[in-house]
Amino acid sequence: MTSINTESYSIHFNTKCYTEINNYLKSEDFSKIFVLVDSNSHALCLPLFLEQISTSLDIGIIEIETGEQHKNIETCMGVWNTLSDLGCDRKSLMINIGGGVVTDLGGFVASTFKRGIRYINVPTTLLAMVDASVGGKTGIDLGSIKNQIGVINSSEMVLIDTNYLNTLPQNQMKSGLAEMLKHGLIHSQSYWNEFLDLSKLNLTDLDRLIYESVLIKYEIVTKDPKEQHLRKTLNFGHTLGHAIESYFLEQPHKQELLHGEAVAIGMILACHISHHIFNFPEDQLKEVSETIISIFSKIEIATEDYQPIIDLLIFDKKNEHGKILFVLLDNIASTKINIEVENELIKASFEYYNNL
Amino acid sequence: MTSINTESYSIHFNTKCYTEINNYLKSEDFSKIFVLVDSNSHALCLPLFLEQISTSLDIGIIEIETGEQHKNIETCMGVWNTLSDLGCDRKSLMINIGGGVVTDLGGFVASTFKRGIRYINVPTTLLAMVDASVGGKTGIDLGSIKNQIGVINSSEMVLIDTNYLNTLPQNQMKSGLAEMLKHGLIHSQSYWNEFLDLSKLNLTDLDRLIYESVLIKYEIVTKDPKEQHLRKTLNFGHTLGHAIESYFLEQPHKQELLHGEAVAIGMILACHISHHIFNFPEDQLKEVSETIISIFSKIEIATEDYQPIIDLLIFDKKNEHGKILFVLLDNIASTKINIEVENELIKASFEYYNNL
Repeated sequence: MTSINTESYSIHFNTKCYTEINNYLKSEDFSKIFVLVDSNSHALCLPLFLEQISTSLDIGIIEIETGEQHKNIETCMGVWNTLSDLGCDRKSLMINIGGGVVTDLGGFVASTFKRGIRYINVPTTLLAMVDASVGGKTGIDLGSIKNQIGVINSSEMVLIDTNYLNTLPQNQMKSGLAEMLKHGLIHSQSYWNEFLDLSKLNLTDLDRLIYESVLIKYEIVTKDPKEQHLRKTLNFGHTLGHAIESYFLEQPHKQELLHGEAVAIGMILACHISHHIFNFPEDQLKEVSETIISIFSKIEIATEDYQPIIDLLIFDKKNEHGKILFVLLDNIASTKINIEVENELIKASFEYYNNL
Repeated sequence: MTSINTESYSIHFNTKCYTEINNYLKSEDFSKIFVLVDSNSHALCLPLFLEQISTSLDIGIIEIETGEQHKNIETCMGVWNTLSDLGCDRKSLMINIGGGVVTDLGGFVASTFKRGIRYINVPTTLLAMVDASVGGKTGIDLGSIKNQIGVINSSEMVLIDTNYLNTLPQNQMKSGLAEMLKHGLIHSQSYWNEFLDLSKLNLTDLDRLIYESVLIKYEIVTKDPKEQHLRKTLNFGHTLGHAIESYFLEQPHKQELLHGEAVAIGMILACHISHHIFNFPEDQLKEVSETIISIFSKIEIATEDYQPIIDLLIFDKKNEHGKILFVLLDNIASTKINIEVENELIKASFEYYNNL
């Protein structure tokens, strides 16, 4: 798989990752390396990574706790203080190894420490590979509001080694699949079709599909880095998806939803709304719903949850002038952005989902 | 005084400020305005500002506590949460009215809220006008380490209305003067000469000197926005100045030093070190010391304070590869950057200062 090279950063795949980073470490004048991991990636991925790295520089390992509930400013404070204590300077390099929490939070910490040090992302989950790794969005949650605080600042390099996926639980794989499905729905009918029968796919297919997903995201963010039009389409399924994720996170008696599980629901809801507003074809609505339900187990959303979830939409970052703006489809791979939707239609989409 | 206009931001002076901001508010499609003040600027400056503003947009006022000890992540959390609660979105505008704490912290909050909203700085202290207002450095302190967390991101506009200085206490004026003296020392002999006899200066001179100081800083940061060479000269006096400021801040029995008071000491120390390493002329060392001492009262730095202050130099953001790097002079307006200095020479400079 060919590397993707831009003016400000590059994305490398599989074995290429290590020749590239080792060359980079040799060619740049770094003072120290700091590796950020969570408890999972520390145990499962860091040993594989370090085996491949050849450098004489000091490597400091910083571990944070695993889980979205730790993607907050308190964790940042811990990492900032550790970087200070360990003598991190502006010539230091930070390497974030882990899922989206580690790469998003690590990117934010690096972008703000001494007003910015260079960093590399090594996504180890499918979700982080196909979504968090490209586009330079960094961020942390504020209370239950996802990614409310952050900056846009690209890593120097993204290293995507699909071998790390061997250590990933099945439900985490599904979480990443949601974003790949999304890339098909908003950008490519043929890419979407690849997922209609997952049983036909093997590991080589997965590598290729990951590469194509990264390419789709890369194309979109390159055309609109500041999210003024096209990049907004990447939020398809996320308006309600984020609200559902936040709602389940703040309800102690609810199960914790993975980001991709919430987005999967959000995409079905968005397709249902699209059907009503833009005549998104009924057979496509059926195909999308069935495909997603065949991959993700149904989550119970009670009638009394509808309004509190809708109330959380007010925090969506795409909102402008107090209006909640959806990304919808009039066909697969044909998006409509900045669409206002009546609450009644949102509630009807919840009903549709519950009756699937 | 002519406005300074760049591609990404503009700086306006005195009455021009209000015609420009009112035009800007009309021409852009903002959803809401949020004004950040501290308790001082709320009482003394906000009424003057609001009198001149003409807009139909909602204006939310957010007040933080006054003082460097509140320039921290806890204060940011408070402001981020208030922005969320008040429905701040990506089309909102933030206006920071106050001294360097308000403009630095407000700039950081705006640059990171929902990955960045637009903001305007209205510096109301002399220090903020001639220093914090230009160059896009935002930041907060981490414990006692100054500006350890931040980003570089310019405000849309800087409004410098010297009328706000009428409300400023004398010691705060001196604090700003320190940065103006620095601009002379690193960049312009003729500008430095203006300050040799302050008694000759009147209010019109002050307006002109502020304008020239902003121009000097603007020229330097434009030539080297990422602080790779020339911009480092703006740290003259700040290596030891910051360490002295941090040390006095964390000692409960010491008086709190204003930033400019600490920098004033730092400049004398740096000139003394420059004399020993680069033959900075003895008569200039004498002139600098006498001029600074005539403006700033002497601060007692005890012998036992020397080493703890030197120990704090390790946190200086200019350090690279564990080396503490000074900006020095071989003549007025002729700088040397990235210079390592022996601890003994630093201690000798403290002795020199104490014997003045």
